[in-house]
Amino acid sequence: MIFDLKATFTFSNDISLIKNEIESSISDFNTVLFEKDKSLKIKIKNVKNNILNLEISSEGSFRPHNALLQMKNILSKELGKKHHLGIRDIKIENYTIDFELEKEPLKKINIPYANVDINEKQARIILKEIDEEFLRRNYIDRMISLVKEKVENQYYEGKEEFWNLIWKSEEKKHIWSKDPTEEMAKLGWLKQGPTKGKWFYRPQAAAILKTMEIIAIEEVLKPLGFEEIIESNIVPFEVWLKTGHLEGMPGEIYYVTEPVTRDIEKWERFIDLTKITREVPYDVLQKNVSHPTAGICYAQCPLIYWSFKGKTISEKSLPVLVYDKTAVSGRYESGGRHGIERVDEFHRIEPVYIGTKEQLSDLRDKMIERYKHVFNDIFELEWRMAWVTPWYMQQAGKIGDKGTQDTGTIDFEAYMPYRGLLFLFLQWFQELMHLIFHVSLGFHRVLMDFI
Amino acid sequence: MIFDLKATFTFSNDISLIKNEIESSISDFNTVLFEKDKSLKIKIKNVKNNILNLEISSEGSFRPHNALLQMKNILSKELGKKHHLGIRDIKIENYTIDFELEKEPLKKINIPYANVDINEKQARIILKEIDEEFLRRNYIDRMISLVKEKVENQYYEGKEEFWNLIWKSEEKKHIWSKDPTEEMAKLGWLKQGPTKGKWFYRPQAAAILKTMEIIAIEEVLKPLGFEEIIESNIVPFEVWLKTGHLEGMPGEIYYVTEPVTRDIEKWERFIDLTKITREVPYDVLQKNVSHPTAGICYAQCPLIYWSFKGKTISEKSLPVLVYDKTAVSGRYESGGRHGIERVDEFHRIEPVYIGTKEQLSDLRDKMIERYKHVFNDIFELEWRMAWVTPWYMQQAGKIGDKGTQDTGTIDFEAYMPYRGLLFLFLQWFQELMHLIFHVSLGFHRVLMDFI
Repeated sequence: MIFDLKATFTFSNDISLIKNEIESSISDFNTVLFEKDKSLKIKIKNVKNNILNLEISSEGSFRPHNALLQMKNILSKELGKKHHLGIRDIKIENYTIDFELEKEPLKKINIPYANVDINEKQARIILKEIDEEFLRRNYIDRMISLVKEKVENQYYEGKEEFWNLIWKSEEKKHIWSKDPTEEMAKLGWLKQGPTKGKWFYRPQAAAILKTMEIIAIEEVLKPLGFEEIIESNIVPFEVWLKTGHLEGMPGEIYYVTEPVTRDIEKWERFIDLTKITREVPYDVLQKNVSHPTAGICYAQCPLIYWSFKGKTISEKSLPVLVYDKTAVSGRYESGGRHGIERVDEFHRIEPVYIGTKEQLSDLRDKMIERYKHVFNDIFELEWRMAWVTPWYMQQAGKIGDKGTQDTGTIDFEAYMPYRGLLFLFLQWFQELMHLIFHVSLGFHRVLMDFI
Repeated sequence: MIFDLKATFTFSNDISLIKNEIESSISDFNTVLFEKDKSLKIKIKNVKNNILNLEISSEGSFRPHNALLQMKNILSKELGKKHHLGIRDIKIENYTIDFELEKEPLKKINIPYANVDINEKQARIILKEIDEEFLRRNYIDRMISLVKEKVENQYYEGKEEFWNLIWKSEEKKHIWSKDPTEEMAKLGWLKQGPTKGKWFYRPQAAAILKTMEIIAIEEVLKPLGFEEIIESNIVPFEVWLKTGHLEGMPGEIYYVTEPVTRDIEKWERFIDLTKITREVPYDVLQKNVSHPTAGICYAQCPLIYWSFKGKTISEKSLPVLVYDKTAVSGRYESGGRHGIERVDEFHRIEPVYIGTKEQLSDLRDKMIERYKHVFNDIFELEWRMAWVTPWYMQQAGKIGDKGTQDTGTIDFEAYMPYRGLLFLFLQWFQELMHLIFHVSLGFHRVLMDFI
């Protein structure tokens, strides 16, 4: 990587008479910097009146903008003490970062705050007219990563998931091949709505769902030692910023906004208009609610991770085995909704575990045994099991071959007679249990961000 | 009530030559109106060029604005056919409604769209410069009701609930008097958060809550024949407009907003900024989400009522006895949060029933027996039972004395040793079961709005 930064310090008074002193300070600092990164160098381009123009270049790991901020501190301290001079302002006229990509982009890359020029595998980020605050916030490295990630993503777009069969049951004779949603709706067991992708389960359908819940708990979770916890249904953005959900699927979130106030007087106009018009005065409502600050549960694991934040777990209390079945998941599905299989709102049991790699490998094996028991002995399904690296891991470059792969998920897929195809059991089964494994490494990685 | 409306019709052409014809049409219509309401009269005030000024007054039930709209239809039809004249525009310069209040207001009353003058018990609503659309929407009667309601509310503000003891248990010796939330938090059984008034129940606290759930179901609901249903956690405004929640407690709702799109390109800037800054770009988010269209479950009954919308229930399938325990209730509490007793999010079992008045009276008695059994034999509580008319029924004027009262709720109150006072068991118990009775009449009233 090659960094080149052109900056201007504006001092509180004329510095032309102490030019030598400034040169010597910078020269001293260059010596210090040389110890850290041989390629890094601060050059004085011009000194005039109260203006100092600098150029900082580097080819190494020490970033010029960090050098600039440190340089500012040194000059402020030295010149402040001796000459009562302060630095009023820093401006970065130009900051150019050249770096090499692993692959040539397939189409134009854009990122906020900067221009990106890419010639074959040579990328250049050009920032202009940025201020000190911007540098302090340390966006630069994340901008470089974002460019690299966007190129990588272009190669994975539309690619299928890595999929590797682990196990397959025998074929089964299907005793019924109708679409269960349609049939249940006809019988009045189910009613669609009241909003998109949601269902009202009348007693007959509710009984089926709740029986599956009991099977999951009694036949899988309890025998393995899992204990129930209850988490909130509302996940604040701070948590999703850590787990990556907010940047990962912002278009699939049901957002939550809070009233700005509960003061009844502030709501009087809204109430009066609603009573008179029997319609919602959206403009008045909008003034009385905050911008979204949270979302409805997307998956239950983030809040379980959050619950361990700052907690030290002793070796002897491992493995920690917990599950939530209370939070209701909401996912905004634009298309592809189908019956109770692909919905905007579903009920799921999500187990989370913390343990040594050995404990979790052992748990995985036992869990698979329990699943086999449920699918073979209770549901009598035709199903298969596959080792899968989902797209979000592929994007992050976390793909190995069959031998080296130790993160990823195991998908359980069952044959749905009425659809005539193998369908992700995970999806069909989503009303029952979240079957994705947080295998040791994957889980620890997320958790580490919290602690 | 005295209504006085001054309106202007603007015709597509000069009408001065057909003044007589218009007079005769209006006179005929007056005769028709006289049959409906003797006090109603349309008077021509002026005819000039293409302008017709009218005044309509009434003291009865037939509203002048409805007469005006009918008058418009008649004139349009008659003059259109004969003279190819149309009515381009209706303007209401002034609409005054005088009516008497039951009580003199304690302070100034304001409502949208109109001025309200009140002199002792004499109220006057004055509307100026309103258009045809406004009249069509039939806001007038709701505006009159709103004025009356606001005066009534002034008398109930700060008033206590109607409260009448029904039954009282013996005093009990308390074996423990600490604050359960504090103690559980100290032991690590509970963790506050992640957002205001929410809790994370670790296995020990979850086990207590879930045990109470089992008791409620096995000891109260199942023995009485209730069946479980599963409803959505998200309630659209349309439903709350019918149940009155939207006008009743808009400041206590957790609102839900949807993404405007799931299209990943439309979210690119949001994603990029989130990745670079590790902060939420609220301005970009705001553009990508809709205004609120729904809220998180406030109580479970509205969606159960909704589920019966348009459904005919045969006499022989009564009583219908259902409950939901899946939706998680959210209520924005500005102050007064305390531990797990007064929270923003709670779990509740809400039973709803439809039946004849006799069936429901019988059910109420049996339910009280089951509650007694739970509180006396299982929890061994010191508690009491009171007949209560909550404020929202008081406001609506639904208060009777002990003898005539047949809507309202029965509250179950238990002594909380650590608080040193009788505390609403309903509140303390809110994590377990919604104990308010939807007594026959109250329930049917709400349901009727839906069907």
